[in-house]
Amino acid sequence: MSGLPMTVSDPALPARVRIHEVGARDGLQNEKTAVPTDVKAEFVRRLAAAGLTTIEATSFVHPKWVPQLADAEELFPRVRDLPVRLPVLVPNERGLDRALALGAREVAVFASATESFAKANLNRTVDEALAMFEPTVTRAIESGLKVRGYLSMCFGDPWEGAVPVEQVVRVTKALADMGCDELSLGDTIGVATPGHVQALLTALNEAGVPTSRIAVHFHDTYGQALSNTLAALRHGVTTVDASAGGLGGCPYAKSATGNLATEDLVWMLDGLGIETGVDLAALTATSVWMAEQLGRPSPSRTVRALSHKE
Amino acid sequence: MSGLPMTVSDPALPARVRIHEVGARDGLQNEKTAVPTDVKAEFVRRLAAAGLTTIEATSFVHPKWVPQLADAEELFPRVRDLPVRLPVLVPNERGLDRALALGAREVAVFASATESFAKANLNRTVDEALAMFEPTVTRAIESGLKVRGYLSMCFGDPWEGAVPVEQVVRVTKALADMGCDELSLGDTIGVATPGHVQALLTALNEAGVPTSRIAVHFHDTYGQALSNTLAALRHGVTTVDASAGGLGGCPYAKSATGNLATEDLVWMLDGLGIETGVDLAALTATSVWMAEQLGRPSPSRTVRALSHKE
Repeated sequence: MSGLPMTVSDPALPARVRIHEVGARDGLQNEKTAVPTDVKAEFVRRLAAAGLTTIEATSFVHPKWVPQLADAEELFPRVRDLPVRLPVLVPNERGLDRALALGAREVAVFASATESFAKANLNRTVDEALAMFEPTVTRAIESGLKVRGYLSMCFGDPWEGAVPVEQVVRVTKALADMGCDELSLGDTIGVATPGHVQALLTALNEAGVPTSRIAVHFHDTYGQALSNTLAALRHGVTTVDASAGGLGGCPYAKSATGNLATEDLVWMLDGLGIETGVDLAALTATSVWMAEQLGRPSPSRTVRALSHKE
Repeated sequence: MSGLPMTVSDPALPARVRIHEVGARDGLQNEKTAVPTDVKAEFVRRLAAAGLTTIEATSFVHPKWVPQLADAEELFPRVRDLPVRLPVLVPNERGLDRALALGAREVAVFASATESFAKANLNRTVDEALAMFEPTVTRAIESGLKVRGYLSMCFGDPWEGAVPVEQVVRVTKALADMGCDELSLGDTIGVATPGHVQALLTALNEAGVPTSRIAVHFHDTYGQALSNTLAALRHGVTTVDASAGGLGGCPYAKSATGNLATEDLVWMLDGLGIETGVDLAALTATSVWMAEQLGRPSPSRTVRALSHKE
C-alpha cells in the first residue's frame, strides 16, 4: 500500500505541529506494575530516534503516590543527553528540587479545572492547589526552566459532568499569569466534541491567553480525540499531546482507552501534509516493541493496522 | 455524568444529519457465521426504536457469495412495515427482482473506484461493472425505487495504494448519471484524511455532483473515521453511513476495526448540537445486546465507555 496516506494539505491548518509525547510519563504511570528502568530508557531513546522532539520523560511525584515512576532519579540521567526536549512532571517544590538536581531543563505542573478532581487528585481546593504551584512555578522560572501547566478535566468531570468554559478559563488564566509558558488543556475523560473545543479556545483568547501558548491533550475514551484535535488545529493550535501506542489513560475514567495514540495523530497529520518530523514506521515499531514489553496489544488503530501481518 | 457531551454548536456545520445505518447489512455480512434471522429482525427493530431512520436491512446478493445474508427473503418481510427507510443491497437484475417481489422501496448497488477491487469483488473491470449496474438501476428507477450507489476504495486500495481523485470522480459521475439519487463514498480500507476528503468532495462538486447527493462511508481502520466525517460535515455533507457498535469491516483490510461506530458518531453530533433523532442510550443498549449475541465486545469506544460498570 504505497503512497498512503495520500497527502492533501488544507491551507486553513498549520504547516507544522509539535507533538508533546506523553507515553513514557502519562502512559507508564497508569500501568498496574512498574516497567523496568532499562525498558523506560530504551522507550525514550526509541521515541527520540523516531523523530519525536518533546518527550515527557518521568514524574518527580512522591513514589508513594506514583510507584510506577519511583525510579525517576535513576531514569532521568540515562536519557537527559538525548537531543530532544525532556520535560518532567513536578507536583511541588520538593519535586522541583529533585528535577533541578538532575539537570532537568523543563518541568510541568498538574492542576485541575474542577473542585472534585482537585480534591480527589491533590486533596486540595482548586485555589489551594494553585497556591501550592505558585512558588514551584516561580522558582522554576527563576532557575531558567520552561514550565508547562497541565489542566485536567477541561471539558467534563466524572463527578460534576459538563465543566463550564468560564471555570476552565479562570484556572488556565491563573496558570498563565503565574508564568507557565505553555498550557495543556486536558480532556481527561474524553468527552469533548469539536464545538466545545472551539468555544474554550475562543474564550481563552478573549481572556488574553494566546493560542500560541495552548496545547491540547485529548483522550480517546469516546473516540473523539482526533476530531477534537482537528478542531484545535483549525483554531491555530500547533502543540498536540499524544501517547505512543495510545498508552495510558485516566484511572477515574475506567474505559479501555485513554490518550490519543501518537500514531493515529501522525497518520492524520501526514495525510494533511503537516510536518511533525516523526517517522511513522519507526514510531509504530517502537509501540509494537513496547506492547511486547507490557504483554498486551496497543489500543492504537494505526499501530494495529500497520503491524498486522497479512 | 450528567449533561455530557456538553452541546456547543458550530454554525459552519449542518443543523441535521441523516445517519444511514449499515450494521445489519455491512456489519453482519462480515461475520464468520450467519446470525439467526430472529436476531437480525430484532436488531433492525431495536435500531428503529433507537431513532435511526434509515436502516440498510440486508442484501439480495447470491447466497453463494454472502451466505451470512442468505435469509434475505425470510428477514425482509419481518421488518418491512417498520416506519423507517429500509434500503437493501442488490448486485444485479436478479437481486432487484427478489427485492421488488418483497416490496423493497429502496435499493443500493455496489461499485468500485479501482480496477483491482472491481476484479476482486465482482470479477469485472470498472466499466464492465458499471454496464452491469445500468439496467438494474434503470429498472429500479422505473419501478419507482430510490437507488443508492456505493463506491468502494474511494481513497486508497490495498493493491493500488492511493487512488487518484479524478478516477473516483469519473466512476461517481457515471453512477450519478445512471440515476443513482445518492452516492456513498466508501473509504473501504480506512486510509483517508480530512484534506483528501475535502479535495474529493470539491472535485465532485466541480464535476456536477452536488453535495446534497453525497453520503460518506468511513472506516476506522486507522482511527480516522470521525475526523474525516467532521471534514465532510464542514463541506456540507448531511448523510453519514455508520454501523451500530462498529460492526463489520472489510475482508480485504484485515485489521480489527471496520466501520465507523454509530455511537461514536452520535456522541460527536450530539455534542455539536446536530440533530439525528437517535437516542444514544437506546442505541448503545442495542449494541451491547448485539455484542452478547455475537459473543464478543463492541469495538466502539463510546459503547465501551457508556456500558462500563463503574
